[in-house]
Order: sequence, then C-alpha cells, then structure tokens
Amino acid sequence: MMAKITAVIDIGSNSARMAIFQRTSRFGFHLVEEIKSRVRISEESYESGGMLQGAPMDRAIKALKEFMAIARLRGARKIFCVATSALRDAPNAGEFLARARAEAGVSIKVIEGEKEAFYGAIATLNLLPYREGITIDIGGGSTECAVIKGGKIKELISLDIGTIRLKELFFDKKGSLKEAVAFVKKELEKIPENFRSERVFGIGGTIRALSKAIMKSTSYPIDTIHGFEYPTLSHLETFTKIYSSEVLKLKQFGIKEDRFDTIRGGALIFTALLKLFGAKEVVTSGVGVREGVFLSDLLRGHNFIFPVNFNPSVRSLIDRFCLNENRGKRIKKNALELFDALLERHRIDEGYKYHLGIAARLADIGTALSYYDHHHHGSYFLLHSLTYGFSHKDRAIIALLVEYHNKKIPKDSAIAHVQTLMPSLLTLQWLSFILGLAECLSLGNDAEGFAFGYKNGVLTVSSPHDLYLAKEEAKKLAKPAPIAVIFEKS
Amino acid sequence: MMAKITAVIDIGSNSARMAIFQRTSRFGFHLVEEIKSRVRISEESYESGGMLQGAPMDRAIKALKEFMAIARLRGARKIFCVATSALRDAPNAGEFLARARAEAGVSIKVIEGEKEAFYGAIATLNLLPYREGITIDIGGGSTECAVIKGGKIKELISLDIGTIRLKELFFDKKGSLKEAVAFVKKELEKIPENFRSERVFGIGGTIRALSKAIMKSTSYPIDTIHGFEYPTLSHLETFTKIYSSEVLKLKQFGIKEDRFDTIRGGALIFTALLKLFGAKEVVTSGVGVREGVFLSDLLRGHNFIFPVNFNPSVRSLIDRFCLNENRGKRIKKNALELFDALLERHRIDEGYKYHLGIAARLADIGTALSYYDHHHHGSYFLLHSLTYGFSHKDRAIIALLVEYHNKKIPKDSAIAHVQTLMPSLLTLQWLSFILGLAECLSLGNDAEGFAFGYKNGVLTVSSPHDLYLAKEEAKKLAKPAPIAVIFEKS
Repeated sequence: MMAKITAVIDIGSNSARMAIFQRTSRFGFHLVEEIKSRVRISEESYESGGMLQGAPMDRAIKALKEFMAIARLRGARKIFCVATSALRDAPNAGEFLARARAEAGVSIKVIEGEKEAFYGAIATLNLLPYREGITIDIGGGSTECAVIKGGKIKELISLDIGTIRLKELFFDKKGSLKEAVAFVKKELEKIPENFRSERVFGIGGTIRALSKAIMKSTSYPIDTIHGFEYPTLSHLETFTKIYSSEVLKLKQFGIKEDRFDTIRGGALIFTALLKLFGAKEVVTSGVGVREGVFLSDLLRGHNFIFPVNFNPSVRSLIDRFCLNENRGKRIKKNALELFDALLERHRIDEGYKYHLGIAARLADIGTALSYYDHHHHGSYFLLHSLTYGFSHKDRAIIALLVEYHNKKIPKDSAIAHVQTLMPSLLTLQWLSFILGLAECLSLGNDAEGFAFGYKNGVLTVSSPHDLYLAKEEAKKLAKPAPIAVIFEKS
Repeated sequence: MMAKITAVIDIGSNSARMAIFQRTSRFGFHLVEEIKSRVRISEESYESGGMLQGAPMDRAIKALKEFMAIARLRGARKIFCVATSALRDAPNAGEFLARARAEAGVSIKVIEGEKEAFYGAIATLNLLPYREGITIDIGGGSTECAVIKGGKIKELISLDIGTIRLKELFFDKKGSLKEAVAFVKKELEKIPENFRSERVFGIGGTIRALSKAIMKSTSYPIDTIHGFEYPTLSHLETFTKIYSSEVLKLKQFGIKEDRFDTIRGGALIFTALLKLFGAKEVVTSGVGVREGVFLSDLLRGHNFIFPVNFNPSVRSLIDRFCLNENRGKRIKKNALELFDALLERHRIDEGYKYHLGIAARLADIGTALSYYDHHHHGSYFLLHSLTYGFSHKDRAIIALLVEYHNKKIPKDSAIAHVQTLMPSLLTLQWLSFILGLAECLSLGNDAEGFAFGYKNGVLTVSSPHDLYLAKEEAKKLAKPAPIAVIFEKS
C-alpha cells in the first residue's frame, strides 16, 4: 500500500510551492492543499553568476520549515522536494541544500532540465484529455518543453530562458526589449526541428495568467483554468502587445498586479515558442512539475500512464462521496442500451455515449451534500471537480445532464453561460431524457433484466419488475420529441 | 450501535412517502433519499364512512412493495412504517394491514392523532432553531397541533379536518365554501384555550406550498423551504383569497398544479388556526412525522432531545466530509479570542460569536470538493446543507464568512441576494477579518499558544511560532478599519 497523503514541494526561481495530494484508492487521487510562498530564491542571482544571495536563502529556509510542518500536520507519509533552475545554476547550491537539511529537515533533489520537462509532460499527458501536443512550461529561470505523440513522450528539452532571468537581465533596465528578443531567439536555436505541433499545453504561472486574462476579456463561462483552450491566432497579437507594454499599462490587458514584474518576459518567451512550434491551439494546464512528481511515484511500474479508460477524478469522486457504484453501473447500462434502441429515432453522434455513461455513474453525487435539489448540487460538484482528463465541453455536458435529467432543459438564461460549449439543445434533450428514464427504471429494483425496443414512434420497456413507481416518475419526464413509452412485464 | 440506515414510511391520506436517513455518528445524520407516491389511499372514502376503496388500496400495496425494495437496496436495517388518519378512520383498515404484511412484507403501525402531533413536535423542536411555538401539521384527513414551551412539548391535539376530507366533502361540490368554513370552525372548538402563540411552525405539503408561493412572489433569496419565516399579517389576506378562489385561478397565487385540488381546504384550515392561535410569525418546517419517527428512535433514552449545543447538521457535515476537527477547533479558539481582544474596537454584538465559531469549524469544508475556489464551494455547501437547527439568517452569515474570510466582502451584486437577511456590511467585514486572521495563524503550526492584545489601534499577536507564512498571508487580508497587526514571538 502506498502512502495516502503525499506532499510535493517545488522550489522555483520565483516562488516555492507545496501541493498535498490525497489518494482515495489505488489510482484515485485529488489535490487537498496547495501553498505558495513568493520567496524568489533567485533574487539578484542572475547578475551574480547564479550565486544565491543571503536574504532570499533565509526566506526559502523559513518557508520550507513551515511547509514541512504543514505536511506533517496533514499526515503526509511521503514528502518529495525538488528544485529547478535557480539551484541548478547556483555555484553555492550546496550551502543551501545543507541548510535545508539541517534547519528544515528536508532533502532537496535538484533536478535536471530534461527531468523537469518530463514531469510536466507526465502531468499533462495523464491529466488533460489529449495524447498529442508539445508542453511549454515557463518558469523563473528556465523553460521546458516536451513533445508528446500517440500518448508517448518523444522529446524533452530545457532552455535557459525564464521570467525572472529576463526581468533581471533586461526588463529592469529600460529600453532593452530588443536585446531580450535577441536573447530568447538565440536560445530557441537549440530546439530541434521535430518540435512542431498544432497543439500546445501551457504550464506555469505566466501561461495561466495569460489564460485568465483571455477568460476575463471574453467573459468565458467556466471559472476553471485547467483545460481552458483558445486558438493561438486570436491572441498572439495581444501577447506581443503585453511584452512590448510599459509596466503601468499591463493592467489594461487584464494582468494582475503580482504578475506585472514577470509577465512581459513570460509573454515574450511564450509568443516566440508558439510561433516556432506552429501552434494553432493552446490548452491551458493547471498541472505541472508537482503533479508530475506525484504521478511518477504513483505510476511507477505502470509506464507512468493511467490504465486505459481510467479517470482519476471520476474514481476519486466515487471514492470520496461514497457513491453506490453498482447502482451507477446499472443506470449506465440501461442508459446506453436506451441510447442504442433509440438510435434510429434520435441519430445522435455516438461519441456522446461517453458523456451519458459518466453522467449515469455520477448522477446521484449531489445527494452527498443534500437530497433536496441534489441534481443541482450534482451539477455544481461535477462542473468544479471533474478536474482531470476532461475538456471543458465534456464537463459542461456531463454537469448539464446531471442537472436536468429529470426535468426540462430550459432554453433561457439558466444554461446560457455554457451554451457556447454545448451541442444542440435537441441533442442535450435526448441525452437527458434517456438518462432520466434510465434512472426512473432503477427505482425500487436492481435495474437488471431490462430490454428495450423501438418501432414506429413507440419505445417498449420490457422488465421482470412491476415498475409501479418508475411509471409514475417516467410520466413526469420531458420528452425531446413525440414518442410513446410502453411498459411490458417480461 | 444503532442501525446506520433507517427508512421511515408514512402513509398519509394523500400520498405515501418514504424518507431514508443515514446516521454518520451517534447523533449526526442526514436525509439520503425521499420518495413520494401519490397513491391517495383515502380516495372516495370520506363519503363512504371512511371505507378504503379497492383501487386506492391496490395502488398503496404496489407502492409499498417498491418502497420496501428501495429500502433494502439502500441497506436499511430498520424500517418503520406509520399510517395516519386515513387508516385510523377506516373500518376496513385491518384488511389493508393484512395485505401490506402479506404482499409487501411491511408491518404498518396506525398511530393515534396525539402521537402524530408528538412526532411533528419532536421534529420541529429538534430541527428548527426555536424552543417556543405551536406546530400546525395539515394532512389529507386530519390536522395536528402541539404546544411547545421552553423546549418542552406541553399539549397535543388532533383535529378531524384535512385537505382531502374538505375537498371530497365540500370543494368538489360547487358553492359550499360556507359549509366548509362552518365545518372547520366547529372542529376548532375542540382546541383548548392554552393553544396560543406568536410563533407557528408550519408542517406538511399545504403549508410548504403556501411558503413556496410567498418565496416566489417576494423573490426570496434562499431556495430552501425549511426554516423560511414570514409575518402572518402580510399574508393572511392572500390565504383567504386562495381558499375563496376558483380552481382555475389558483395559478395566479403561485400555486403549482398538483396542489390545485387540495390547497383551498388547506389554506382554509391554516388561516383559521393562525387566527385562533394569534400567530404573528410562521416558521416553515421541511420536517414532520417521518423525521419525528426517526428522531424518537434515535433519541429514545435521551428525552427525545439532542444534547445541549449539539447540531446534527454540523456534526454530519464534519463526519461526511472528513474534516480535520482539531484544526477546526483551534481556528475557532483563536477566532473567538481575537473577537474578544478586538471587542473594544469593533463593538459587535457577542451573539455573532456563534456564527464565527461555526464558520471556523467548517471553514475548510469546500476542500472536500476541490482545493481551488474552496471558499466558494464551502459557502455553497453550507448554504445548502446547514439544514437543521439554523435560521436562514444563521446560514447566510456562516456561508458568507466562509466565502469571504480571505478576501474583501464585495458591496455589489455578489451578496445582494442575501443582503436582506444580513447584519451590516461593517459587522460582516470584522467577522470575516477575524476568521481570516485566525486561519492564517494556523498555517504551518498547531495554532496553539497564541495570545492577543489590542491597544491604540494596534493588534498584537504573540506566539511561540515563527509565523513566516502567516505573516505573508495576513498582509493580503482586507481590514474592516485602519488597524495595525504586530507579530511578537513569545
């Protein structure tokens, strides 16, 4: 049995962070705490040949001591601590490592750039719903990229360009944008030809800040950064304006004040890489090195990849909220069979069976909070916690099905906020009717032994059960089209 | 150890219902399922001397069979089944009880009217935040009242007036409103003089339907029926209009169609009782006989009352979402001590320490769903699941503190929906600052050994800990007024 609580500390050039993960079963897990301290250990180091300075080291040691205390209070049995470019570059890193061990009781592993790129790739590959693309992880001192193809990590690279590095070397000195551009361009020459992809996975604080600015300016309907996608072309010009902007004008781009000093360098690096890779689409990643370190421990001996059809968020939700899994599976079975029986009538893309199946398994989840309005709670739960491995469209569809599977999907403002992400209303109405009927059929029986047939506008439900309550409930369902439902005892 | 899952079936004149309760610890519990079937067992019985008719009995047996199947699928170890006035009044009740036992395997207990009143009283006394008042539980065949004084049940009465009874005897025959009024008036003469109270607890579907109509017409901000309060005077006239209305005009009062046939009789009974009791305020109860049956089992040997300061919803939330209780208690301790230390500065009513304490214990609850935005999730959780023993004002304050304890409470639309229930913004800002600071102080330490002092605009926090992270976080808190915070190592 592996440790239940694992803490991963990551000492970057800009901030030190700790993520605490809780495993809920063999591969099910979720993040339970994330702490950030802006220790900026690399402060004033880039002009001193990478030498870590006294005050930043003191800050880092204090933060580490309290990180360790938090991890212990949480009951962490495993604590991993990695450090990246600031310590890789520091001639006096040894002094800091010794102090960290003596004063905070923590063994820091300074990881190489390729390893850092690997962790980012492991995280995105396992926790975003795509198997192709290039990761870009922009940090304070370095930037890492990984080429992912067919679900496999093919290439790794680490570049000596980062937000704090550019800030201290160029942006802090007025009028040196050209030099910064040239510096980045030169570093990019190291990148091999095969780093080309239409899709980029964006990792790290800079890229998250840019995504947040886009979400805000476009009034994007879902308030979740992980999995947010946008077309590169629509935003490259803005990114260029951002890195060419004066600090005081950054606010107009929707950038928060605590990013003012690093966003320009970050936007410059990101823009250059997007152009070089030929990226048409950016998928924002809320996960990175810390999740990668955790997963590389969790999935060691499993080729660093989750089993086929395994989703850690679905698993963890079922574990955490004690859902009756057999009931969920039976509702899913009937829902998928109803989908097939009605296929000639609804003609919906079979890809939506994926959403129907997950919504069926998780349809009851809102009852964990309160039975009353549990469909609404369930929708809230899923929209906010189908974190890993789902696109925002997936999340929105599944949440909507759980919300409306026993009532009519309104055309009005109630779903307007997610409408841009959605399939047609008629498709949703069919899926929701099918899920609602499958749930009715499970009332007061084990939902087994059912058979479904469809002919000339009549759906026949055969079952060995009386279905007294099911019939009463089924009458209340909103039908997407004129269709009769007949019950037969088999 | 008592059973973990308990099902309570209640066969009323109008519908049969089953509630399934899950215990999470000795007294902690929550409702996990509620099923209703509109079997209307009393159909056509009131004009037949109470004789139950064949078709209604068949419906009831079918529903009971499936209720039992649902309870068993849920793993219920205890199943209670009670029947009220329809069976009390039926000369052929024995036939039905025998069929229920033989065909559905359920032993039905036909309870007397006073016992029915007792169950309603037990439920409201334990699950609403008041110790004085009269319950009114309007059913299909009868209406029960209980006088509660000083947290004790003093008087019980059952009246032979109910919604279905009035419908079948009077409202189904045109032009007989006067007779119905006289019939009710005559029955009310049975009520002793000491049934007088400014507060009424309203139980049952009719009273819930009236409350829902009021909530809708006043755009009430919280979508929860249990605990909804309104002044009697503002609505008596509407109730009178409702029972004098034609069926087809009921919609204009916000009454749903499935209540059209019973609401007039119900409104008539309710209006007459409110006037007789001299009620100034109605508190809507979402709980009644089923909860009473469950509680009278749970609390037998405890005088049918929860221990002092015990709240079943708080307990059940902590149990269900595996909150770290010690951490919650430490944050609570520091929050209450900060409240006291700053008392001369903020001068807030000490009654709010109750809300501060509960918010402190439950501040982390949103992390059960997702760490990101957990304050928002926590607020959502509490608004929807601090079900029992809280007024809506209590809920709204606690939820707001959890939502905003680490950021500024906005003056704008974000809290407008609950503003009518709230204390002043300044009071909330102080409470939220205090809770936020108490939470910061717990970062990376066991939150013990703290001492707080206030003098001349300066709050001094003494602690044996470094508080490196706490200081970083405390800087981000929004202060309700100019005040300095100084940290001292003790």
